[in-house]
Amino acid sequence: MGTAPRLATDRVEALLSLEQHLITEQCAIERWFRCQWQKTPPPFYASVDLRNAGFKLAPIDTNLFPAGFNNLNPEYAPLYVSAVQHYLAQYHPGLERVLLLPENHTRNGFYLENVARLAELLEQAGLNVRVASLRGEAQELELPSGGRLRLEALERHGDHLQAGDFLPELILLNNDLSGGTPPLLEGLAQTILPPLAAGWRTRRKSQHFAHYRRLAQELGEVIDIDPWLIDPIFRRCQGIDFMRAEGRDCLVANVNAVLDAIRERYAHYGIQARPFVIVKADAGTYGMGVMTAYSGEEFLELNRKARTRMAKSKEGLPVSDVFIQEGVYTYERTAENAVAEPVVYLVGQQVLGGFYRVHRERGEDENLNAPGAHFEPMAFAETGVNPCRNSPPDAPINRYYAYGVIARLAVMAAAREARDWSTQSRA
Amino acid sequence: MGTAPRLATDRVEALLSLEQHLITEQCAIERWFRCQWQKTPPPFYASVDLRNAGFKLAPIDTNLFPAGFNNLNPEYAPLYVSAVQHYLAQYHPGLERVLLLPENHTRNGFYLENVARLAELLEQAGLNVRVASLRGEAQELELPSGGRLRLEALERHGDHLQAGDFLPELILLNNDLSGGTPPLLEGLAQTILPPLAAGWRTRRKSQHFAHYRRLAQELGEVIDIDPWLIDPIFRRCQGIDFMRAEGRDCLVANVNAVLDAIRERYAHYGIQARPFVIVKADAGTYGMGVMTAYSGEEFLELNRKARTRMAKSKEGLPVSDVFIQEGVYTYERTAENAVAEPVVYLVGQQVLGGFYRVHRERGEDENLNAPGAHFEPMAFAETGVNPCRNSPPDAPINRYYAYGVIARLAVMAAAREARDWSTQSRA
Repeated sequence: MGTAPRLATDRVEALLSLEQHLITEQCAIERWFRCQWQKTPPPFYASVDLRNAGFKLAPIDTNLFPAGFNNLNPEYAPLYVSAVQHYLAQYHPGLERVLLLPENHTRNGFYLENVARLAELLEQAGLNVRVASLRGEAQELELPSGGRLRLEALERHGDHLQAGDFLPELILLNNDLSGGTPPLLEGLAQTILPPLAAGWRTRRKSQHFAHYRRLAQELGEVIDIDPWLIDPIFRRCQGIDFMRAEGRDCLVANVNAVLDAIRERYAHYGIQARPFVIVKADAGTYGMGVMTAYSGEEFLELNRKARTRMAKSKEGLPVSDVFIQEGVYTYERTAENAVAEPVVYLVGQQVLGGFYRVHRERGEDENLNAPGAHFEPMAFAETGVNPCRNSPPDAPINRYYAYGVIARLAVMAAAREARDWSTQSRA
Repeated sequence: MGTAPRLATDRVEALLSLEQHLITEQCAIERWFRCQWQKTPPPFYASVDLRNAGFKLAPIDTNLFPAGFNNLNPEYAPLYVSAVQHYLAQYHPGLERVLLLPENHTRNGFYLENVARLAELLEQAGLNVRVASLRGEAQELELPSGGRLRLEALERHGDHLQAGDFLPELILLNNDLSGGTPPLLEGLAQTILPPLAAGWRTRRKSQHFAHYRRLAQELGEVIDIDPWLIDPIFRRCQGIDFMRAEGRDCLVANVNAVLDAIRERYAHYGIQARPFVIVKADAGTYGMGVMTAYSGEEFLELNRKARTRMAKSKEGLPVSDVFIQEGVYTYERTAENAVAEPVVYLVGQQVLGGFYRVHRERGEDENLNAPGAHFEPMAFAETGVNPCRNSPPDAPINRYYAYGVIARLAVMAAAREARDWSTQSRA
């Protein structure tokens, strides 16, 4: 599996002290997490994109429809299966039949491997599992690894979805509903996980990161750290039309406000880096419509190409709400000097491990979740997800513990989002 | 880690069909377990001794103070740690400080390694842990592996135990209280796990196996098998005095009754083996006072040596209640042809894996938990604790799944015992 990326920066002191702090405070952190999960159950699964700037370690995206299970270290399968079993035991003990609904990417072999691996994990946990496509027709697909993935015909009967004569008790979405909720899924009597409100059409990054901000403050108080060290500053603008240049003033003002706030913190810590922001759609995913900016004024002079790129997100949704997030440098580099960012996977409250997203053609101030990225399951999870208090803070086992803490904090923010949705749907 | 023991018998057909059956019924089994754990929480930890007779797979002893954590495959440490974390999350979320009280075997390097490994697992799960001896004095002991184990001075202040200035919220016993409950532990305000009633002085094998019998019937109905295939027949005699030969009639009658019942089942299945029983103390552990018998009349003619051996169990307790258990042949053999029996470890509801207890000088009809036994962590857990429906039923991964099902059933029996104790202590 190779070795872990090295942190290509001389600004590691603050992070080493952050990592050391997280390890020292492990007992308080774990106790705090346990009590929080009792109040707010975690989502079934998630992946969290992190950026490690040496002086700062923060989540930049929390995906409730994670793909990439095929990239997890297969040696730790018993850990993944046990995470599914514990989730079921706590939240769905009576469950036996699950229907997995993946994305419609039937030509993306990588994605199909993910679906097959996920279905296998659920089976190993002791569930009866079928996979069906929202497109409906039965299909048998070849996997690059040589196996086959069967998609069942999907039928709706009244308020139930069925795959042939298989009547699932739970529908597990691995389709992020970027195109909105298909009528097929509306008004079902069966439980759907994640809930439909988690779909990218309705879910808002600003709501997620507002919860995350509060959680970073709460954890910051428990372990006595500046929450900024783990929390990216953000603002948002509503009613933006990139093509018609509507809402530019809000963009300029809020980009500059975020940059000013970063500048203040950089000055406070003596950090010599240039502040930047990432501007993206408040709803949506997949790294389309994502740009790096160093000043608000850049939005006064966007060329047609940039405006077109920003105006649409995945599945052609028009962008109108814009999320402006502090750019967090990623100083992780592979042995070949490519820029890398960690991606952490969870089932329930359990960190499974993760891998690095690597992009050879992008810089440390850019979005790496873009065509050309690849995954390197380097070392991550090989040494487990628990710290060793007798090893140095930057030993991989301890760096991964820090990743796990921040990723769980992001997942807890998603859990609080879910609480909002269920309050909203009851209202 | 070598390979798994082979099953040295031609009577595997029934077991293969049992193993196959457990795998086929995995979803129903797992669902049933999940619902049962909701009703009856599992004990913190346990180890279960199994016997694999080819035609029958059954527990013979369930230990609520397991030693031997040092024998578990270290590669799967993340699984063990996550089992502790899930247990804490579900049953003791607010817990932070644990005091581990081991046995007083300070010269048994193997046991000390177990204590050190257990303390390490609890620490990795995010607890503050201290170890203290019930003897009270502070000590630093050398471990055969080279490390050191610190025992803190133990003090009682009012209704609290303390180790120096460390005030634990939970006291975790790895001492089976064979000598009875020390006054130091009585009337404490702190939670004690396992509860004092689980100590071998009070706990009764007959109560455990009565619960197990009911559970084997319940699971047998769910998956449609003869419960005898997983359940050892038993009877007990009270008021036995081996030295004075009191209660011999009960022994003769009940040993013969168990043998008759075995004979009936052997005839039913066409099994050509000779029925035998294991006679041991109804309370107590450690394989003292354990004998194999082929007829009740053997107890009319016990020589003085055998009577003396049977009259006392660990820590010199006199035996008065006797447990007569169907002998289950163990047909597992190592590559060197030594007799082996599987020992399965659990934390909460999670099977961690296990190893084989091997005894070169004992037969397949004898107790192996005796001086001269050693442990071989062969293969067990290497392939995980989840079955593979695409592999043959006797593939190690599937045999281990069968072990895990039976071990969990035994642990659930212990969970029901604990429910009795808490009812009794409230009454």
